[in-house]
Amino acid sequence: MATNIQSVAPRWQPPRAAGERNYPYNCWWVAAFSDEVGRALLGRWLLETPVLLFRKENGEIAAIENRCPHRGAPLSLGCLNGDTVQCGYHGFTFDEAGKCINVPSMRAPLPAAQIRAFPVVEQHPFIWIYLGDPSAIDSVPAPPKLDWAEDGRFAIVSGRLDVEANYMLLKENVLDLTHFGYVHASTFQITDWVDPPAFSTKGETTSYHQTFTRTPLPPVFAEPLGLAPGTLYDRDNYGSFVSPALQVAAVDLKDPDSGEVAGRFRVSHATTPIDERSMYYFWVAGRDHGTSEAELAALKALTERGFAEDETMIEAIEALRRKDPRGAAAPEVSVKMDTAGIQARRIVQRWMTRETA
Amino acid sequence: MATNIQSVAPRWQPPRAAGERNYPYNCWWVAAFSDEVGRALLGRWLLETPVLLFRKENGEIAAIENRCPHRGAPLSLGCLNGDTVQCGYHGFTFDEAGKCINVPSMRAPLPAAQIRAFPVVEQHPFIWIYLGDPSAIDSVPAPPKLDWAEDGRFAIVSGRLDVEANYMLLKENVLDLTHFGYVHASTFQITDWVDPPAFSTKGETTSYHQTFTRTPLPPVFAEPLGLAPGTLYDRDNYGSFVSPALQVAAVDLKDPDSGEVAGRFRVSHATTPIDERSMYYFWVAGRDHGTSEAELAALKALTERGFAEDETMIEAIEALRRKDPRGAAAPEVSVKMDTAGIQARRIVQRWMTRETA
Amino acid sequence: MATNIQSVAPRWQPPRAAGERNYPYNCWWVAAFSDEVGRALLGRWLLETPVLLFRKENGEIAAIENRCPHRGAPLSLGCLNGDTVQCGYHGFTFDEAGKCINVPSMRAPLPAAQIRAFPVVEQHPFIWIYLGDPSAIDSVPAPPKLDWAEDGRFAIVSGRLDVEANYMLLKENVLDLTHFGYVHASTFQITDWVDPPAFSTKGETTSYHQTFTRTPLPPVFAEPLGLAPGTLYDRDNYGSFVSPALQVAAVDLKDPDSGEVAGRFRVSHATTPIDERSMYYFWVAGRDHGTSEAELAALKALTERGFAEDETMIEAIEALRRKDPRGAAAPEVSVKMDTAGIQARRIVQRWMTRETA
Repeated sequence: MATNIQSVAPRWQPPRAAGERNYPYNCWWVAAFSDEVGRALLGRWLLETPVLLFRKENGEIAAIENRCPHRGAPLSLGCLNGDTVQCGYHGFTFDEAGKCINVPSMRAPLPAAQIRAFPVVEQHPFIWIYLGDPSAIDSVPAPPKLDWAEDGRFAIVSGRLDVEANYMLLKENVLDLTHFGYVHASTFQITDWVDPPAFSTKGETTSYHQTFTRTPLPPVFAEPLGLAPGTLYDRDNYGSFVSPALQVAAVDLKDPDSGEVAGRFRVSHATTPIDERSMYYFWVAGRDHGTSEAELAALKALTERGFAEDETMIEAIEALRRKDPRGAAAPEVSVKMDTAGIQARRIVQRWMTRETA
Repeated sequence: MATNIQSVAPRWQPPRAAGERNYPYNCWWVAAFSDEVGRALLGRWLLETPVLLFRKENGEIAAIENRCPHRGAPLSLGCLNGDTVQCGYHGFTFDEAGKCINVPSMRAPLPAAQIRAFPVVEQHPFIWIYLGDPSAIDSVPAPPKLDWAEDGRFAIVSGRLDVEANYMLLKENVLDLTHFGYVHASTFQITDWVDPPAFSTKGETTSYHQTFTRTPLPPVFAEPLGLAPGTLYDRDNYGSFVSPALQVAAVDLKDPDSGEVAGRFRVSHATTPIDERSMYYFWVAGRDHGTSEAELAALKALTERGFAEDETMIEAIEALRRKDPRGAAAPEVSVKMDTAGIQARRIVQRWMTRETA
Repeated sequence: MATNIQSVAPRWQPPRAAGERNYPYNCWWVAAFSDEVGRALLGRWLLETPVLLFRKENGEIAAIENRCPHRGAPLSLGCLNGDTVQCGYHGFTFDEAGKCINVPSMRAPLPAAQIRAFPVVEQHPFIWIYLGDPSAIDSVPAPPKLDWAEDGRFAIVSGRLDVEANYMLLKENVLDLTHFGYVHASTFQITDWVDPPAFSTKGETTSYHQTFTRTPLPPVFAEPLGLAPGTLYDRDNYGSFVSPALQVAAVDLKDPDSGEVAGRFRVSHATTPIDERSMYYFWVAGRDHGTSEAELAALKALTERGFAEDETMIEAIEALRRKDPRGAAAPEVSVKMDTAGIQARRIVQRWMTRETA
């Protein structure tokens, strides 16, 4: 892993105290899809930090604080000249390292006007960013790779949802697949994810695994294989909470006679808190079969409809939470199916504890 | 009075502390009009409590908490099967008593996932609900009846306004009828409600009464009697604050020669706080004369226009209050005409004091 | 200066404590343009005070509290009869001095229902208002005059923007003219306001002054003089922070051969806080040349476009501040060009200190 920027901010403090949030700063998060960042300045709030993203002339990504330290203007209202950013208010100019290289009224640089530069790593299809304590970066796990997304046999589709809900609501959503039978009954039409799978936690990763043998294939899995919906087939269904930023899920479709894997389906869910009550949700789905243009367009359309159903549900939960005077004191009952979700909460808690240790 | 549900929630706590609100929980409130509740799930915030209403197969009303205790989803996003409600997220299923009768991933009920069921009483045209301390329900006055609404000689019209104002602003509005000459000058055109009526308070009911003798009839009273506006006629005009939830008003129109009541006009104003700054306002108007379809349509249209004028006024007052840094410390001057309104505030205060006693 | 109203409110308290705002109450502020106030009631929040403005039958301006002390209704929903205002709720009627001269249900005045009347001064094109401590009014500088706005040789254009930003953001904006090269590069096209001018502070006024000799004229200055853009010409460019309410700017265009002033251009920026995070911005521009109807229409259109650019910028700064958890602790770096802006902050601080002394 190569980080392309050395951050220089001294004595780092998290923008928000640990007690008022449920996400760690000392963690790599997804800032954007690769194709969202080009030569136009892109401003984004990530973990309550104003971030400016742009692609340098050599194609690398730069990320600096999206706030001019002179009078507080968002630098995203300025312009990009070469690899430097000029504030749109009074022309203060910054390089990719956050160094102020020119103040027009002084005709000189101004070292005191240093802003933060954030380490970024581009790993197709994501741009990862580190917004935490610069001195802790080496102790933090590197941004995870999606091997399949770089595997030429896979075709991928992706999308972004800006969700008005705490990011953990989506984490828990994708760790409890029984919601497919209710939330996605008419879209994905996978109705047999009912019984709790096997759960396991290894270090800071928690996973589920479930095997289906000679079970009717839902259309979403059958059709891309050229099979009739309902065909009796084998399926391996597994997924992991990889980090607070990333969740992955997989379905391997196996010929029940030969035992050979006939098709691999993958989904990754990257979520980045904007703040405590909203998030960017970057999803990627891919498979190594059913990869014609029409089939992929259908996959993308279906996934967009399905994930919008999740968005509706978790935004309703967030809205209810906000309105309910009981707040966090409202009751919560968990069952075996929540094992992975509860492990995920604990893992996030440990990430946060390490941060303040 | 028969309540159709036994609530089981132990150790009841009001969702919001008494010092932060001006409405009691231990009181029957109107949840909805009868015709608003059918076989579709209806979610509503009442007194900052999430409530789910539906009509059972036998026609009775059920009301349970509109929040799944599993992961906090509003149950109104789920579906109704028979008399049970299935959460739209993971399928947890509840009966009309708030008992969790099935968790799909467990293929079993889950007694720990009990939610509140609220006593409800249907008395045409209202569905009343009790959201307070279950152990106090027997000490609370039963939901008042609108006798005239069940009297076959009366025809009624009704409507609901969702008002961005504290519910007491409407209570005080309908207890000071001098506002007709200003707020409703061009709609109801009743301009002689100027002098303070007689006021009386008996127990927890405060009332006004005013008699007009051989006084010109406003069109709104004359026309349904087949009289010319301005006809000299007698009128009895009286009303009461019945409970924090209900206000009633009446006008008896009398032939000045015979002394006989030629027509009875009734209005009831039920208000239910959504929270401190907003309410549902359910109004019902009825009369025993002028009951043709066209006349009732005109009455409904006129009343909708007139009560929208009240809504505009009290929402403006609420907005001013919210914006004014003086808050409750801003001056308030009362006159004799406010006697009933001030009594109503004291009565509400006593309702609240009893609740915390 | 003649104030037309004697305020009677006893023991004045600022609506908001000094520590929670950055504007003084004991100061004259602009309430409106003269032509905004006529025989229609105009309600406005100024310094978090609800104000009602109207023009009396004799043409003078009256300003009273826009809140009926009976039940808190905005008087702007009422109506104006002669020089008295009748509340639209129950008809309480107030004169221009805030005295309650009639309560319909009492058929009598009610001295206890006195509301505040605010001293106002009309000085073309502004209506000034004093919202502070009545007992301090004589110690406060009188509303400043715009001599040029009353000088028959000048033609003026003006406009109002309702800006979602703290008023000091606009003050600092117009004291650092280097922003013209960035914010207004394509509108005003004045690109040579780069180097810091001379700064001076005299008493509570802080000023800048800059002289350009035989410098190319930008089109905005050349065209109204009938000169080609780029003509080498002399310019005096100066401006002042006059009070927390008013900033003035001037450009004198001089023939470099004769040294005579060929044209005078003036802009005044009056800003009145609505509250901590929003303001009314009243701008006036005038000149003694290029005063044909078409030229003035062009000046107005250009200024509207240009000042909307400022609005966009300072609203973005305000929004970033509100969202940034660091709040006021976010870094700020100043340079020589900020001399006047920093002096202005100190002057405002002294205004506030005097208020609480």
